[in-house]
Amino acid sequence: MADKIRVVCWNEFRHEKSSEEIKAIYPNGMHAVIAEHLSKQSGISATLACLDDPEHGLTEKRLAETDVLIWWGHMAHGEVKDEIVDRVQDRVLNGMGLICLHSAHFSKIFRRMMGTECNLLWREVNEKARYWVVAPNHPIAAGLGPYFELPHEEMYGEYFDIPQPDELVLIAWFAGGEVFRSGCCYQRGHGKVFYFQPGHETYPNYKDANVLKVITNAVRWAAPTVGMGKRDFGHRPQPLEKL
Amino acid sequence: MADKIRVVCWNEFRHEKSSEEIKAIYPNGMHAVIAEHLSKQSGISATLACLDDPEHGLTEKRLAETDVLIWWGHMAHGEVKDEIVDRVQDRVLNGMGLICLHSAHFSKIFRRMMGTECNLLWREVNEKARYWVVAPNHPIAAGLGPYFELPHEEMYGEYFDIPQPDELVLIAWFAGGEVFRSGCCYQRGHGKVFYFQPGHETYPNYKDANVLKVITNAVRWAAPTVGMGKRDFGHRPQPLEKL
Amino acid sequence: MADKIRVVCWNEFRHEKSSEEIKAIYPNGMHAVIAEHLSKQSGISATLACLDDPEHGLTEKRLAETDVLIWWGHMAHGEVKDEIVDRVQDRVLNGMGLICLHSAHFSKIFRRMMGTECNLLWREVNEKARYWVVAPNHPIAAGLGPYFELPHEEMYGEYFDIPQPDELVLIAWFAGGEVFRSGCCYQRGHGKVFYFQPGHETYPNYKDANVLKVITNAVRWAAPTVGMGKRDFGHRPQPLEKL
Amino acid sequence: MADKIRVVCWNEFRHEKSSEEIKAIYPNGMHAVIAEHLSKQSGISATLACLDDPEHGLTEKRLAETDVLIWWGHMAHGEVKDEIVDRVQDRVLNGMGLICLHSAHFSKIFRRMMGTECNLLWREVNEKARYWVVAPNHPIAAGLGPYFELPHEEMYGEYFDIPQPDELVLIAWFAGGEVFRSGCCYQRGHGKVFYFQPGHETYPNYKDANVLKVITNAVRWAAPTVGMGKRDFGHRPQPLEKL
Repeated sequence: MADKIRVVCWNEFRHEKSSEEIKAIYPNGMHAVIAEHLSKQSGISATLACLDDPEHGLTEKRLAETDVLIWWGHMAHGEVKDEIVDRVQDRVLNGMGLICLHSAHFSKIFRRMMGTECNLLWREVNEKARYWVVAPNHPIAAGLGPYFELPHEEMYGEYFDIPQPDELVLIAWFAGGEVFRSGCCYQRGHGKVFYFQPGHETYPNYKDANVLKVITNAVRWAAPTVGMGKRDFGHRPQPLEKL
Repeated sequence: MADKIRVVCWNEFRHEKSSEEIKAIYPNGMHAVIAEHLSKQSGISATLACLDDPEHGLTEKRLAETDVLIWWGHMAHGEVKDEIVDRVQDRVLNGMGLICLHSAHFSKIFRRMMGTECNLLWREVNEKARYWVVAPNHPIAAGLGPYFELPHEEMYGEYFDIPQPDELVLIAWFAGGEVFRSGCCYQRGHGKVFYFQPGHETYPNYKDANVLKVITNAVRWAAPTVGMGKRDFGHRPQPLEKL
Repeated sequence: MADKIRVVCWNEFRHEKSSEEIKAIYPNGMHAVIAEHLSKQSGISATLACLDDPEHGLTEKRLAETDVLIWWGHMAHGEVKDEIVDRVQDRVLNGMGLICLHSAHFSKIFRRMMGTECNLLWREVNEKARYWVVAPNHPIAAGLGPYFELPHEEMYGEYFDIPQPDELVLIAWFAGGEVFRSGCCYQRGHGKVFYFQPGHETYPNYKDANVLKVITNAVRWAAPTVGMGKRDFGHRPQPLEKL
Repeated sequence: MADKIRVVCWNEFRHEKSSEEIKAIYPNGMHAVIAEHLSKQSGISATLACLDDPEHGLTEKRLAETDVLIWWGHMAHGEVKDEIVDRVQDRVLNGMGLICLHSAHFSKIFRRMMGTECNLLWREVNEKARYWVVAPNHPIAAGLGPYFELPHEEMYGEYFDIPQPDELVLIAWFAGGEVFRSGCCYQRGHGKVFYFQPGHETYPNYKDANVLKVITNAVRWAAPTVGMGKRDFGHRPQPLEKL
C-alpha cells in the first residue's frame, strides 16, 4: 500500500487537439484538469495517460502501481487495443478501482466490466442538468447537498442498458424531459467500478466544484482496501478435511 | 389457489366525500375506478374496502381470501388501527401481494414493511410528470413504451427514504426539476410489495391507460405463486442427521 | 412469440464420447437427458446442439428462433469461437434466456455476461451436497422443499468470483466443509441469466427430479416476456420537446 | 463528530446472571468482553448498557452520543419497551449504526428495521461452524482469510426470513448440514445495519479473534460518515423554480 492513492487519469485526448472550441476549455486535456484537482487533495496523487501514448500509457508496470484508473473516451473507443483492455480488466478484478466518465459508457473496458451494451439516449442542446442524491449516506455523496446543477450538459437518458447497479447514488434530471442513472456503483472481483455521467467535452464541467467532489469521493471509495493486493482466493483444490 | 387473482382495493375514501372537486372525478372513490378496470382483465377479480368499514374492511377471513391488496391513504394514516396493520403485515409475509399507491408512502403498512420513514419532497402545482422505464424486461413494464406521461401530477421528489429497491422499474421526471423512484419492487417474506407513485386525488390519473396498465401488471406480478399458501419454513428444531 | 418456449440444450459433448464411465451414464449426452425432460413439460420444446456441430450448432437463424439457451461446457471452453460468443451475447441482450450449468461457470459466454473471472474452489471426492432454498417465493424455487440433496456431486466452493446476484435462490452445503452460491439470477440487457451449480459429468445428477425441476423452472423464468422481441430502446437522438 | 467512534454494547444480560455455566464464560456479560476488545482498538471507545438499566440504558441523551449500537438479546425480547425501540429506530434512520448479534435476529429492533419475521432454523448440539467470505473486498471482511471456524456454535439455518441483504459478506456452513447467511449488510435511512450470526451464550465465541475482528470491522463500517448528523432532507415544500 502506497502512502497515497495513486490515480491515473486516462483520456482519449483527441477532441482537445482537433477542436479549437474544446482546446480553449481544456488546453491540456480534461484529464489534466481532473488530475490537477486530485493531486491537491490529501492522500491522493494523480498522473496522466492517453490513447496515443505507447501501450496507451498503461503498461503492466504502470498498472501494477495504479490504485484507481479514471477513463474518458468518446470518438476512438475502437482504437483501444484489446490486449490493453484485457490488462485493465485483470487489474480491476485484482482490486484496482475504475471510474468511467461520461461517454466512457461505450468504452471497451466499461462494456467488458458490465457484460451489456451500455446503450442510452442522448441529445446535445446545451440543456440544464440536475443531479439528485438518492443515497445520501454513500461515501460518494459526502459533502453534496440534496442535488447539484450543471447549467449545460449533454443529455444522457434512459433506458441505460447496464446491470442494475449494486448501489445507485445519483439520478440526473434533464430540462428536456429525461432522467438518467448518473452515479452507479459496482463490485467486480476485488475491484470497484463507478460510472459518472457528466463531462461532455464542449462544457467546462470538469471544473465544476460538485463534479470534482464526486470524482474525488469516488477515488477514495474505489481505492483498494489496505493489504488487499493480489487475490489469494480460488482455484486451489481442497482436501476433504476431517470435520 | 383460486381461479382468479382476488384483489382488494383499499381506500381511505375520505377525500372523495369531503371535496366536491374530488368527488366529481371519482364519485365512487379512486378504488372503485381501479377495481372496475381490474375486474375487466382476464383472471382478476377485484372488490372494495375502506377505512370506515368495520375492521377497515380487512377481517381475518377476508384477508385470508385476498391475493393482492392495493392501498391508498393520505390524510388519515393515523386512524388505521395497529392491529389491522399487524394483520396485513402477517398476510404479506405469508404471500399476499401489496401495492402501495402515491401518498400510501406514508401509510403505516408501507413504513412497517420498509423499516424506514419513507419521507420525500413534494409540491402540488399541476405539473407534468414523465415516467421512464429503467427495467424494460420487468413484467410490471410489459406493454409500456420507453416512457409515459401524465399532464398533471403532484411532484414527489428525492431523497425518498426507502431501502434500495430489489428492482427499480420506473423513475419519474417532473417539470419543476425533480426526479423520483416511482416504481419500486420488494420481496418481504413470501410476499411482494410494489410502490407506485402516481395518483394525487385531484387529478383523474387512475383513469389513465398507462397507470392502469402498470397497476394491472403489478397485480399479476405480486400475486402469490401457485401452491405457496402458508409458509412451512422456519422454527423447527433439526436433529443432527448422520451425514 | 412461439406457442412453446423453444429451448436449445447446448453441450460440449466430449466427455460422453471419450469416457466409458460417462457414456454409461449419459449415452446420448447430458443435454439429451435435459432436453428429453423439458420436451415432456407443457409449453416447452427442446432441441440439441453441441460444440462439434457447424457453427457449434448456433447459427444466426437458429438463435433467432431460440427463447432459452442452456449451456454445459468444461474441457473445451477455449474451442468455442469468439464470434459465436458474440452472437450468443447479442441474443441474450435482446431477450434470450441463458442458463449456465456447473462447469459452464468458466465458459466464455458466462464470463462475458458477468465481466468477472468466475473462479471458485473445487474438489472431486463423491461428497454429499445439499441445496438450500434462500428465496422460497422465487419462481425458480417453485415446488422445492426447504432443501434437496444429491448424494454425490463435485464440490464447488466460495469465493465464487461473480457479481453479487440480482437474486440468490440457492446456497449449497458440501459435506467437506464448503458453501456455494448455487442458484444465481441476473438481468443483462433484455435477457435473463441463471447459473446453476449441479451437474458434474461423472454423476447422474441431470436425472435427479429436483435438479430437473430447477432447470424447468429456470427455463420458464428466463423465457422472454411476450412481445418483447428486438429491443426498441436506445441510440435515437431526441429533439428537445416543448414541455 | 467525536474523536472516537462511540459504541454502546447493549446486552439483555440475564443468561450471565441466571446460569452458572454462562457466568463462568462471561462473568461480566458478553457485552463487557466485546466492549473491552473494542476499546483497545484505535479510534473506538465502547461502553455498556443492559435491559435492566433505567430506560434500558438508552436515554435520548445517550443515544444522541452513540455512533454505533451493538445489540444482543434472547429470552427477553418482549421486555424491551416499544418506546425505546422507536427511539433506537429513529436514531438508526438518522445515521447511527446498528449491529445485531446472534439471537438478536428476533429482537424487536431488528424485526422493526427489516419489516419481516426474521425466523430461521436452529439446533443446539455443539457443532462446528465455518464462516465463508463471499465478499472479500468488503470492509467487514478485512483481514479475514477465505473462511474462519468456530469449534462449537448453535446452528442457525435457512430459510432466514429477511429482506435480501444489500451486501452479503459471510455464509456459514454447519456440520449438521445447514447453511446460513451470517453476515448481512443493510442501509436503512442514513444508518447502516449489520447482522452477524455467531454468539450463542454457552460458547466463548465472543473471545474468538475472528469474531472480534468482524465486529470491529463492522463498527468502523457502520459508524456514521463525517458530518452527516441529523438528516436535512425531506418534507420541505419546493417552489416551482424557473428552469
